[in-house]
Amino acid sequence: MVRIAVIGIGNMGRAHAVNLFKGEVEGATLTCVCDTDKEKIEWAKETFKEKVAYFEDYKEMFKTNLFDLVLIATPHYDHPTIAIDAFKAGFHVLTEKPAGVDVESVRKMNLYSIVSGKTFSIMYNQRTDSLFQTLKYYIDLGVLGEIKRTVWIINNWYRTQYYYDSATWRASWNGEGGGALINQCPHNLDIWQWIMGMPDKISAHCNEGLFHKIGVEDDATIYAEYKNGASAVFITSTGEYPGTNRLEISGTMGKAVAEDGVLKLFLLDENEKKIRFESNESMPTEKVTPITISFKEEKDGHILLLQNVVNHIEKGEELIAPGVEGIRGLTISNAAYLSAWTKKEVKLPFDEKKFNRYLNKKKTLELLGGKKRNRKSEEKSEDNGEYSARWKVRW
Amino acid sequence: MVRIAVIGIGNMGRAHAVNLFKGEVEGATLTCVCDTDKEKIEWAKETFKEKVAYFEDYKEMFKTNLFDLVLIATPHYDHPTIAIDAFKAGFHVLTEKPAGVDVESVRKMNLYSIVSGKTFSIMYNQRTDSLFQTLKYYIDLGVLGEIKRTVWIINNWYRTQYYYDSATWRASWNGEGGGALINQCPHNLDIWQWIMGMPDKISAHCNEGLFHKIGVEDDATIYAEYKNGASAVFITSTGEYPGTNRLEISGTMGKAVAEDGVLKLFLLDENEKKIRFESNESMPTEKVTPITISFKEEKDGHILLLQNVVNHIEKGEELIAPGVEGIRGLTISNAAYLSAWTKKEVKLPFDEKKFNRYLNKKKTLELLGGKKRNRKSEEKSEDNGEYSARWKVRW
Repeated sequence: MVRIAVIGIGNMGRAHAVNLFKGEVEGATLTCVCDTDKEKIEWAKETFKEKVAYFEDYKEMFKTNLFDLVLIATPHYDHPTIAIDAFKAGFHVLTEKPAGVDVESVRKMNLYSIVSGKTFSIMYNQRTDSLFQTLKYYIDLGVLGEIKRTVWIINNWYRTQYYYDSATWRASWNGEGGGALINQCPHNLDIWQWIMGMPDKISAHCNEGLFHKIGVEDDATIYAEYKNGASAVFITSTGEYPGTNRLEISGTMGKAVAEDGVLKLFLLDENEKKIRFESNESMPTEKVTPITISFKEEKDGHILLLQNVVNHIEKGEELIAPGVEGIRGLTISNAAYLSAWTKKEVKLPFDEKKFNRYLNKKKTLELLGGKKRNRKSEEKSEDNGEYSARWKVRW
Repeated sequence: MVRIAVIGIGNMGRAHAVNLFKGEVEGATLTCVCDTDKEKIEWAKETFKEKVAYFEDYKEMFKTNLFDLVLIATPHYDHPTIAIDAFKAGFHVLTEKPAGVDVESVRKMNLYSIVSGKTFSIMYNQRTDSLFQTLKYYIDLGVLGEIKRTVWIINNWYRTQYYYDSATWRASWNGEGGGALINQCPHNLDIWQWIMGMPDKISAHCNEGLFHKIGVEDDATIYAEYKNGASAVFITSTGEYPGTNRLEISGTMGKAVAEDGVLKLFLLDENEKKIRFESNESMPTEKVTPITISFKEEKDGHILLLQNVVNHIEKGEELIAPGVEGIRGLTISNAAYLSAWTKKEVKLPFDEKKFNRYLNKKKTLELLGGKKRNRKSEEKSEDNGEYSARWKVRW
């Protein structure tokens, strides 16, 4: 039995704690809950009663031997510090996404994980989605041939001003180190690099406060180039309704389109490169075989991912999202910010120190700058602990 | 009766000449054909016999009084010179797209048109497409509210190396002043600005010879920003099969998606901006009304556009594509090249002299540079004169 402590019981942590408490994850049990907010602890005590130990200071909790794995669901900036302290104290770590705000910190988390020999995983629950798994499987298998282009329009992350005002840390450089790319899109950026691999160059346009009264971006367009010449565009916002979630990938053997929970393949009989260079027609018409694959509603990916981490610890099952994966998607968003801030293309690996200098400047300017927004200081949490639906794949 | 002279009877000019000869355009007749290529003139003589006058030098033809309107279907670089000579000689002008290669020249064409008082129109046949007309009508009417984003993936312009090798002028800086953006996309760039208006800033990535052995771009991604903060992405290539033609536009009242010849609208009951700022939910679920509009196969837009120009001259019918429209789409592609070459965002109106300096440098480098491609010197034309299908809207 893996005993789990949840740190941070805002929206996500609350959902995880409830799932664990209900026994949704086989071989795991909720033993500790930690939050600096007394009201949240009160909620937890009413919900979980005496079956769980409660802490306001995670360092006190780390002195106990009441748990094996800590699930970190605090604001992003605290993930690296807590994770590193956990590894030092000899605990396994599963952290909410993003693993941290800057790549440099997430590198450190991975270093401490390796040194401690403890498990490190990221809550990339969307990796458990069958559509994405099937798509990755096909692409790894070469079904689409050599990849030429990816276009992902993922702007169904609609949020109201009420959402941004629901907690002081939200949508600020000091509170979470960015906007849509750091809060809503880590899953998509991860799935993108998981399926397509890492790009070579990034250019981006990030529009701050375009749709909402916030100081971070609620709209972003990333253009990426790969070493083989392939390119990709990633488009997101939190200000469009109804949004779109449409991923298109084209390769030398055809094209894949994922939309509305359906995966469509359009496959050629022979490699397009051969047609391109050997055809005696200017605009040949080739046979295309369309294949449509539908997927059923599945178990919540958060539970599946938690189950995977527990199975890894208990039975050595391969991790779906090992800690090192926390670096890759974050590399894309860090590089995108750096490109938007400097108005220049950013080559990977990028200058992480330079990114941190720019981010710190953003944070300082925010602290110095202008009128404060009319924010409620308390985060409003959904009481039912089922708020994790927010992070499911939405088609 | 409007008497028409066609200059340049390669693929497109041939199709126009045949359509006119067959009487497809009411109130118009083919009276002259001009081409510098003797073999093409031979083909024309065999096809049109003694009903038409033939010229190898358009200046000789301009001395006659055998026609009222000249339809220019030569390589792009010659459009401005011929058009200006035509206006000076007192003829109406309909030119194939693009009106020219650089905005500065097209401005001059428009100036001479105004001074001469003669009609000037561009063969923007895709403007006659019912789907685009309906979409524009709805957007002008405010059905989508204030526009936030446009994403057009238009990479179904597949071309083989055989196509590029079919004429020496193809896909070269000296021959046509660019690649996919100047040859394949003028229709799409025009439709884009026709429906959405002109952007304020352009950033672009143009990949030269990515899919083919050519020195110009066969792959391009344009990012545009509008004065109201809206953004747009335009993605094209001639090297993907099967390609995509999918145009998505989102606004404060909903979203429109055009794909596979079908226009889908997803409309909100109330303005999203009101929801964004007045909702007491973080992620509200709003009622969306989907509307699907299908369109039937229509008469060839080239004939419809020609008919419009003839009707304009004969009856004062409003021009679908007046000459000034030749400036706008070309402004987008010129600015996109300038952005790609300088690796900088380009603000509109852009520096046209600077663009011409860079283009001339490209042309010089191409003349100086490296091995010549193994090209056939003669353009191979389709004999049936029905090749204009290449420029129909393809879904």
